[in-house]
Amino acid sequence: MARRNVRHTVTRIDTAGATPTIRRAPDHVATEEPLEIRVGPAGPAKRSPLAVTMRTPGDDIDLAIGFLLTEGIIGSAEDVYTAQLCAGDDAPNTYNVVDVVLSPGVPAPETDPTRNFYTTSSCGICGKASIDAVRTRSRFDVAADPTVVPAALLADLPDRLRAGQVGFERTGGLHAAGLFTTEGELVCLREDVGRHNAVDKVVGWAVRQRRLPLAGHVLMVSGRASFELTQKATMAGIPVLAAVSAPSSLAIELAAEAGLGLVGFLRGSSMNVYAGEKRIATD
Amino acid sequence: MARRNVRHTVTRIDTAGATPTIRRAPDHVATEEPLEIRVGPAGPAKRSPLAVTMRTPGDDIDLAIGFLLTEGIIGSAEDVYTAQLCAGDDAPNTYNVVDVVLSPGVPAPETDPTRNFYTTSSCGICGKASIDAVRTRSRFDVAADPTVVPAALLADLPDRLRAGQVGFERTGGLHAAGLFTTEGELVCLREDVGRHNAVDKVVGWAVRQRRLPLAGHVLMVSGRASFELTQKATMAGIPVLAAVSAPSSLAIELAAEAGLGLVGFLRGSSMNVYAGEKRIATD
Repeated sequence: MARRNVRHTVTRIDTAGATPTIRRAPDHVATEEPLEIRVGPAGPAKRSPLAVTMRTPGDDIDLAIGFLLTEGIIGSAEDVYTAQLCAGDDAPNTYNVVDVVLSPGVPAPETDPTRNFYTTSSCGICGKASIDAVRTRSRFDVAADPTVVPAALLADLPDRLRAGQVGFERTGGLHAAGLFTTEGELVCLREDVGRHNAVDKVVGWAVRQRRLPLAGHVLMVSGRASFELTQKATMAGIPVLAAVSAPSSLAIELAAEAGLGLVGFLRGSSMNVYAGEKRIATD
Repeated sequence: MARRNVRHTVTRIDTAGATPTIRRAPDHVATEEPLEIRVGPAGPAKRSPLAVTMRTPGDDIDLAIGFLLTEGIIGSAEDVYTAQLCAGDDAPNTYNVVDVVLSPGVPAPETDPTRNFYTTSSCGICGKASIDAVRTRSRFDVAADPTVVPAALLADLPDRLRAGQVGFERTGGLHAAGLFTTEGELVCLREDVGRHNAVDKVVGWAVRQRRLPLAGHVLMVSGRASFELTQKATMAGIPVLAAVSAPSSLAIELAAEAGLGLVGFLRGSSMNVYAGEKRIATD
């Protein structure tokens, strides 16, 4: 069982009084460890490292599968032949590597030989090119999904997300991503020190449950809505992304082009709709 | 002049009353665009792409220099021969590439040919190896810096940071990193959609100002303290890192090993000290 948080003794200081109060107290801290995702074609060839992400251990296979799906490398669970968590070659006591073998006929990710890093959807030239890269890779047509969600239901989601955040309650240091139906039912919730990891874990779970595309669902995240999260929602076929905090300019642009409903500053009874207004019902 | 935020018309919905209120209103959104950092040795050889980061435009040279410093590729401003912001080859109207030429004798970053991505300090095997990588690369001995900061002064920093967050005031969507002296004077503040970018911009500014190592300074960040931020502080020789929110387990481990004071949940008059207790004075 992966340790999602660790105990740590902290020194609590309060400077409010005439003399500061100081006490040592036990605390829980969110675990952060690197995870290397290795991927390769079917057969005896060695799998190549594709990416390293700093994540909270747990649901690591889902994280790897979700990452491969949201990067467009796989399109469904059938594209994965095997996926296993294994110890690194040099460190037998850690389980910080996921080794993925693709099914026969599924091409291994292209690594541009003129570029010494894996080319994600963020291509470095401009936001427009990054958006085009997502559009090219996506296998699901979010714009064609007729999903509409009542605004009053969205207003309830932050509390429902928070209620499921066991790790945040304990550490105050974890982002959360929750997948809800349009009736407000929580389908899957994951927490992680990295918000993109929390989303990948949700998406990877859904891939393995054969639930993609995630038409008719809302993805609710505890923080901000970046381009990366909008990309992941689009790639998984999710029609509505709701965030407690602000979206970025590029997140709004991608949402508008992909037909994704994008809601930010979802707090109390109020919210801002930044794209896909037709998906939010107010009558 | 880079656009750090853009105007966007949003639909504000409030579901509190018997019938929801809906109004269209102008808003400011934090700009997010990719930046590609290219680096190469002195001479006519083509520079290779090293990394792409999604950032808020502005201070891009500082961002690139700060990234190279915190990754251990350069140790000072003298290691950089030229650094310029340029348009991508295929998109003449964008300025999303920084091209860095290293000074003669400075080796270009190693890219492990058996690994198809640039190997950062997060190596994928385990947190301990990631910490060792930072220790190997760091050129400054943070543990030898005698800096001590009064707890009462730390308690003032969140307000001082917030007062300088022009972009956050406007968009609600930007992280901030502020460099302070131990007298509480703000030396440099930067905002970005990515917290690591805000720190790299501060560090890059300090590199170009020939202020490294940043002994006798406190780095205050608006969010959480991850391994990555602790790494960047250590690499720049900063002895105290203070965060408004929680640290991760690996951030605490690195701080303890490097001799960095790590303060979290710095809110109101209270704070938690997670490592380097001797750096926080309470008398």
